Amino acid sequence: MIQENFSEWYHQILEDAEILDSRYKIKGMPIYRGWGLFIIKTMQRELERMLEEDGHEDVLFPVLIPADVLGKETEHIAGFESQVFWVTHAGSNELERKLALRPTSETPIYDMFSLWIRSHTDLPLKVHQSCSVYRYETKHTRPLIRGREFLWNEGHSAHESLDDAEKNIDAIKKIYSILIQEFLCIPFITDRRPDWDKFPGAHYSLAFDTLMPNGKTLQIATVHNLGQNFSKVFDITFETEKGTHEHVYQTSYGPSFGRLLAALISIHSDKKGLILPPQVAPIQVILIPILFKESEKKRILEYTSKIKSRLEKLGVRVKIDDGEGRPGAKFYYWEMKGVPLRLEVGPRDLKGKKITIVRRDTAKKSEIDFDGIEDVSNILTDIKNNMREKAEKKFRDSFYEVKTTEEIKEYLDKGIVTAGWCGNKECAEEIEGYGNILCVTDDSGICAVCGKGGNEIRVGKSY
Amino acid sequence: MIQENFSEWYHQILEDAEILDSRYKIKGMPIYRGWGLFIIKTMQRELERMLEEDGHEDVLFPVLIPADVLGKETEHIAGFESQVFWVTHAGSNELERKLALRPTSETPIYDMFSLWIRSHTDLPLKVHQSCSVYRYETKHTRPLIRGREFLWNEGHSAHESLDDAEKNIDAIKKIYSILIQEFLCIPFITDRRPDWDKFPGAHYSLAFDTLMPNGKTLQIATVHNLGQNFSKVFDITFETEKGTHEHVYQTSYGPSFGRLLAALISIHSDKKGLILPPQVAPIQVILIPILFKESEKKRILEYTSKIKSRLEKLGVRVKIDDGEGRPGAKFYYWEMKGVPLRLEVGPRDLKGKKITIVRRDTAKKSEIDFDGIEDVSNILTDIKNNMREKAEKKFRDSFYEVKTTEEIKEYLDKGIVTAGWCGNKECAEEIEGYGNILCVTDDSGICAVCGKGGNEIRVGKSY
Repeated sequence: MIQENFSEWYHQILEDAEILDSRYKIKGMPIYRGWGLFIIKTMQRELERMLEEDGHEDVLFPVLIPADVLGKETEHIAGFESQVFWVTHAGSNELERKLALRPTSETPIYDMFSLWIRSHTDLPLKVHQSCSVYRYETKHTRPLIRGREFLWNEGHSAHESLDDAEKNIDAIKKIYSILIQEFLCIPFITDRRPDWDKFPGAHYSLAFDTLMPNGKTLQIATVHNLGQNFSKVFDITFETEKGTHEHVYQTSYGPSFGRLLAALISIHSDKKGLILPPQVAPIQVILIPILFKESEKKRILEYTSKIKSRLEKLGVRVKIDDGEGRPGAKFYYWEMKGVPLRLEVGPRDLKGKKITIVRRDTAKKSEIDFDGIEDVSNILTDIKNNMREKAEKKFRDSFYEVKTTEEIKEYLDKGIVTAGWCGNKECAEEIEGYGNILCVTDDSGICAVCGKGGNEIRVGKSY
Repeated sequence: MIQENFSEWYHQILEDAEILDSRYKIKGMPIYRGWGLFIIKTMQRELERMLEEDGHEDVLFPVLIPADVLGKETEHIAGFESQVFWVTHAGSNELERKLALRPTSETPIYDMFSLWIRSHTDLPLKVHQSCSVYRYETKHTRPLIRGREFLWNEGHSAHESLDDAEKNIDAIKKIYSILIQEFLCIPFITDRRPDWDKFPGAHYSLAFDTLMPNGKTLQIATVHNLGQNFSKVFDITFETEKGTHEHVYQTSYGPSFGRLLAALISIHSDKKGLILPPQVAPIQVILIPILFKESEKKRILEYTSKIKSRLEKLGVRVKIDDGEGRPGAKFYYWEMKGVPLRLEVGPRDLKGKKITIVRRDTAKKSEIDFDGIEDVSNILTDIKNNMREKAEKKFRDSFYEVKTTEEIKEYLDKGIVTAGWCGNKECAEEIEGYGNILCVTDDSGICAVCGKGGNEIRVGKSY
């Protein structure tokens, strides 16, 4: 089980599978390598497609933000200022005003929204950008999970009314849910963060939390209702149909591609290595010719090529591993890399016009006919569904309903704990000594600390 | 003709067509908007696909480079140091060592190559990354052409021998040629830059130059043979088959997506606005229902929808403009945006099961049958070919063979001049008073300044 030594396993597999290289000479800034980057770019395109279908414009703002723009909203800058990288010089000159590497892009984007929005006909305005953001983390950094440079997509919207903003939040929740649960097979729960943990400058924040094999929760995406907070500071107004001028209502949102990849890797894998859902696997099918006698070699390789081109016509990403080395070593390598399906092609397969198939998710071996090769598509779909269901089940089984602080402590190492909280600050502080209050729900509950009535809460040990 | 007031036309069309917004509060850092970003992402994917097919690994290095890594190769840093943005602070702390925003990535990538390469079996090593780079330009900035942040793809390779490095250069030239000439329909010439104009740290540099409507040449991509220069500084060695250790031979290369977009826009467009090659157009076919009577409206809109779904099945990017406004205004708008084909659907079309088609490149109007709608794909291919040929012809007609410096001066405003140069520094300086020596060819020529024998050169007014 990878739970037992999760941290060690995690760092090792990132290097072994060439997801990234952590030896770059700046702390918290690893190098993304091809195998991981393919997965990130695939999820990015899927998300962008959905956002654009929903009416978002794809934009790209500069990485640098002038200090006065970043600092315009007081709560916002207070939340970020300790984490900002500052550009102060260019060539041998000191700049007249310092420039921040974007930690997030509300401020530069809303500064432009005030130019782009004039009338109610310009609304809703919805934009998104995929980019890197920069935060000088002082906490312990972990590759893909907590870094000083991370890849994400951020969405920003402006609406005529609070109601329209809420509707956009619903639409985004749906899009993120399709990306995370359907596409990446990652289970999650949506948590409305307590007020002390919301995004700096937001009215409220929703977080998408998943659970890592070591029992820690990982926030993989957030959605913020910003109300009119930023629009008042950046003076983003529109002319209503009646001719009056009002401030827009805004929302912002973003998943972290790095954290989604971290969750994908950690939740689905096993001791042999990665198990990748077919839709994001750089290679979906690895074809391994099994060569015994020199005399058969040519015919087996021809048969393997034929299988490859049939699969390519089905739109499958397929590769033949006909390199040196014994089949066993190849099996081992491609299992570690997480390729969903292995097809073995040996003398017996050739003779019977068969193909031997081994699934990475179940390790089950079976045989298909060459003429029934279309079945590979169905098997890939089945793998995806199986991976999703398995992960969902495990996630559902990791919630623990408890009553006392002792129980909170006990179960926090296993998963997410539901308990009660009275609403009192001191009681919250005691609970947060053990874990983080992820969400204060609308359901009622008895406070685990003082026994008074209050709300049900969810508690987790967060990354 | 857009030549006459090219600069004004260029700035206007970038804003009108929503390619970018130049009002961002940092000089030389515009905001990319959806219409332009689609074109950039499309060319990026096409290039990445070809590079990966050729064996390049997709990587992404951090944007920050430690000062000591960037400064390791003397010639290289001498060429870039006046242009580097420096991060010196994070939060309220001064960093122990300053960090550069990448102006190009030879140094950080080769620092890792020294870890990645051990043996001849690791070679060739070829990586590429699509990213933004940062240069503090002190010259006049121009959107997409000369900015302080620009989007590109950079490739880096390491080889066992100089011969292998040269072969890689040939392969890259071919890939870039397909991207630029075939895919983007942009004509170019490959120029080997004179020594004083090569990439800092390179053995020699090849540049892909195209010609803008105002007669100025624009460098859209470069390929550098780095020899063993960087590998000696970064100590990138490999064990040969014989067991000896040698330094690798390297090449690096990159096209600027911004400049390719600038060339695409400028070379193909006309006074009405953009003319986009179909393969990069965000919308390839705009469908405009022509509605006169209320009674026909429903049937015409149904017919339009039917046309849309037939085109979508053919893989065409299509949109219906059924918004308010008169057809004439819609024609005007989508012509400005450069959509390759306009399909008009009016009562007469509906009656005869016809569709009226207007090409953006030739303005020619014709009619097709609904049942022959597959023809749209052929027309789109024809548009692409026509655009490429037209641009090629114009380019070929813009070369002028001259003998004297007076003639160089005279023809430089029209295009690229071929003349002679003796190889003497003073004569080059006189010529470069009028324009830039783009290339010293292998052919012989008589020096335009002193009349002595030497080589043929190409001269242009460069951006």
